[in-house]
Amino acid sequence: MIRPESSIKAILAGSPGQRVTARGWVKTRRDSKSVHFLQLSDGSCFADLQIVIDDGVIPAETLARISTGACIEASGTLVESAGGGQSIELKADGILVHGEADTTTYPLQKKGHSMEFLRDIAHLRSRSNTFGAVFRVRSALSFAIHQFFQKRGFVYLHAPIVTTSDCEGAGAMFGVSTLDLMNLPRTDEGEVDYSQDFFGKRASLTVSGQLEAECFALAFSNVYTFGPTFRAENSNTPRHLAEFWMIEPEMAFCDLDGNRALAEEFLKEIIAFVLDHCAADLEFFNKRIDGTVLETLEHVAASDFEHVTYTEAIRILERAGRDWEFPVHWGVDLQSEHERFLTEETFKKPVVVTDYPREIKAFYMRLNDDEKTVRAMDVLAPRIGEIIGGSQREERHDVLLDKIRAQHLPEEHYWWYLELRKYGSAPHAGFGLGLERMMMYITGMKNIRDVIPFPRTPGSAEF
Amino acid sequence: MIRPESSIKAILAGSPGQRVTARGWVKTRRDSKSVHFLQLSDGSCFADLQIVIDDGVIPAETLARISTGACIEASGTLVESAGGGQSIELKADGILVHGEADTTTYPLQKKGHSMEFLRDIAHLRSRSNTFGAVFRVRSALSFAIHQFFQKRGFVYLHAPIVTTSDCEGAGAMFGVSTLDLMNLPRTDEGEVDYSQDFFGKRASLTVSGQLEAECFALAFSNVYTFGPTFRAENSNTPRHLAEFWMIEPEMAFCDLDGNRALAEEFLKEIIAFVLDHCAADLEFFNKRIDGTVLETLEHVAASDFEHVTYTEAIRILERAGRDWEFPVHWGVDLQSEHERFLTEETFKKPVVVTDYPREIKAFYMRLNDDEKTVRAMDVLAPRIGEIIGGSQREERHDVLLDKIRAQHLPEEHYWWYLELRKYGSAPHAGFGLGLERMMMYITGMKNIRDVIPFPRTPGSAEF
Repeated sequence: MIRPESSIKAILAGSPGQRVTARGWVKTRRDSKSVHFLQLSDGSCFADLQIVIDDGVIPAETLARISTGACIEASGTLVESAGGGQSIELKADGILVHGEADTTTYPLQKKGHSMEFLRDIAHLRSRSNTFGAVFRVRSALSFAIHQFFQKRGFVYLHAPIVTTSDCEGAGAMFGVSTLDLMNLPRTDEGEVDYSQDFFGKRASLTVSGQLEAECFALAFSNVYTFGPTFRAENSNTPRHLAEFWMIEPEMAFCDLDGNRALAEEFLKEIIAFVLDHCAADLEFFNKRIDGTVLETLEHVAASDFEHVTYTEAIRILERAGRDWEFPVHWGVDLQSEHERFLTEETFKKPVVVTDYPREIKAFYMRLNDDEKTVRAMDVLAPRIGEIIGGSQREERHDVLLDKIRAQHLPEEHYWWYLELRKYGSAPHAGFGLGLERMMMYITGMKNIRDVIPFPRTPGSAEF
Repeated sequence: MIRPESSIKAILAGSPGQRVTARGWVKTRRDSKSVHFLQLSDGSCFADLQIVIDDGVIPAETLARISTGACIEASGTLVESAGGGQSIELKADGILVHGEADTTTYPLQKKGHSMEFLRDIAHLRSRSNTFGAVFRVRSALSFAIHQFFQKRGFVYLHAPIVTTSDCEGAGAMFGVSTLDLMNLPRTDEGEVDYSQDFFGKRASLTVSGQLEAECFALAFSNVYTFGPTFRAENSNTPRHLAEFWMIEPEMAFCDLDGNRALAEEFLKEIIAFVLDHCAADLEFFNKRIDGTVLETLEHVAASDFEHVTYTEAIRILERAGRDWEFPVHWGVDLQSEHERFLTEETFKKPVVVTDYPREIKAFYMRLNDDEKTVRAMDVLAPRIGEIIGGSQREERHDVLLDKIRAQHLPEEHYWWYLELRKYGSAPHAGFGLGLERMMMYITGMKNIRDVIPFPRTPGSAEF
């Protein structure tokens, strides 16, 4: 096992004269008459370690086994680097080859590959510069999220994945079953008899952990979920996944202002963490993927977010004198072109829009006294649009029940959700962040399939 | 929102004379002639805050609304506590009732409840002493796990949940589908036509993220997963869940000795973290749930784990002179009675058993030179038995292929897993910890359904 102190990250911080052993995968090999150069990566950091092998030091039959993709162990002495880039390189006097990589068939050769091709070799793509950086950032970001909440005393809960109620109506759901499809049990009415299924009821994959998080918030005050959620929408776009990870904090004794303040604090802190911990990876994204990434992140981390109500936002958009693809008037949902106008042209920073018309938002959002709008909020960011959605929740039992009935939702599914409002109800609020949306924002990657290890999309659940 | 500095945890650490506002749920109410006492919890810590209300200070109609389960906000001054227990209490001069709890119907009255009853009200059970403690510990433990790996430079990956290959053969799987069961598409042969299903293939819920973690280990060296896994076994026991959370580290350049060392370091560090961060919760478990909890945890954190091979373990058991329910001889799997004998009677501490017969272990475990045993390990702990299972993986392409064929596994499903051994293969190893098994070990809770927020078991996926 590579201990932190013997990783390539640590070796690159070492001093000339030190004896070290480096382990990793060869990214490239160059040979001159008298010397061989290898770029070695162990995934611990963006930079490769250059291995220099003087001709004759390593047996020819060992050298012959080393090519792009091979896994080796190189021992030797650190020396000052002659070339540019790294300041340190490894002058090797011993090489052990763990695994070769056939030069004619290894798919990840040095030449550039399309993102589509790399997706087809998702088992190997993490060895490339781009995906190495993507998944190091994803790991750091995930930890930053946990740390943000744990530091503040939030209780982490694992919301259930399989559920027997489509509580939110948030989207199409995947069925989960152990029934033998070639031999389905039927009720007397000829329907599928789910009472014989594993859970005794029709079961699905969750679309959100929010309702369960509310149960916990009304016991622990501040809680968060961080887990996978699912949408069975047949959307084959660069912005949709069937399986993705969500973070959903929920706070008791919290109104929409508190919710908005926390969302801003949250985004700024996790961005600052990644800027601080993944500098080399972000530099790469800025150079190779999207030249605005660093500037945007630094700007967001330093800005005070703007706040407008939906009604104010509509007024701004109506007066913009633009020829909108989606015409604007009070009551319509904001489209991407509107969100970008607000963040990129009007305010030039993140904008929180609150108090949307009740008709376009979910039943659980708290009704304002005007009875026309609800205490919803969307955090919009330059370049990407909506990044966080949240609301103050309806904590009044009778108002909630009215809304469930008005929307013809199955009241019996919500017995426990309603009971939360009957027994020690409290004002509470929360929001949701899609991890992959945030990853796209941070890295500048253009396709959501390229920021999750093994993407699940219509027609594809490989690996 | 309750900021850490205004939580009951912080209030209890305050000083007499301070003015504070506490928010939370009333656990009990007692009234004497001249004074009213409330126990208030906001979930931030095990201890309640005692609220003292002198008669006449708060309007009678407000007091009338306060009973067990009600949600209130109490303002006043901290005073030294007259009674035992806490040293500080809150003398209230203002009370705001957020939500009442009808005394005749609120299910979580003061009297003790059975665990079964509390499971039926999983939306409220976190407000009880026991489940408050359980889920605070679960949150702290989860964070300890992340911190352990992140500190050591491990990359956290989210292994996929939906998969089209039953890669491990680890157990029965749940089907995932969007097909209309009342109207199933058929192939010409009359089979279900999964090509028309969402993923274009038969899909299931994952039983383990290990194989995907191996892909990442062969790019980042040290990685870990932490996510939900599923077993569709119809096991209605206190030790089985259909949905549970697993942690699976995987390390390149690591053999079984390194794996064993990491598992020991890991268990000790996360136990020490919980002992340190959840002292009051653990004291409660020790007092009310299982009087050996603290002693066991402190012992494990301080012990050097024992190591025996399977062959040695069998010899010890054969010579024990016991009348085993499951007779012991070389080749059989160890049963609970054997594991407990080794940990509780022979060694009196955790024991790592390695090098099991190949026949009783999974295909991916590295074959020893004796060709009879594989580089498997189980970490057994006193009181609970197996807590970690792991192995060095078979990194030799041809040996792995032989084993896949010998076990009649669908070779075509493993193309990418085999390719990891063709391109830059490296010795590597890893292990798996079930979060709920660990939770039972730490808390002494006897039923696995009581250490996960919303348990999924045969016939039940409520909430």
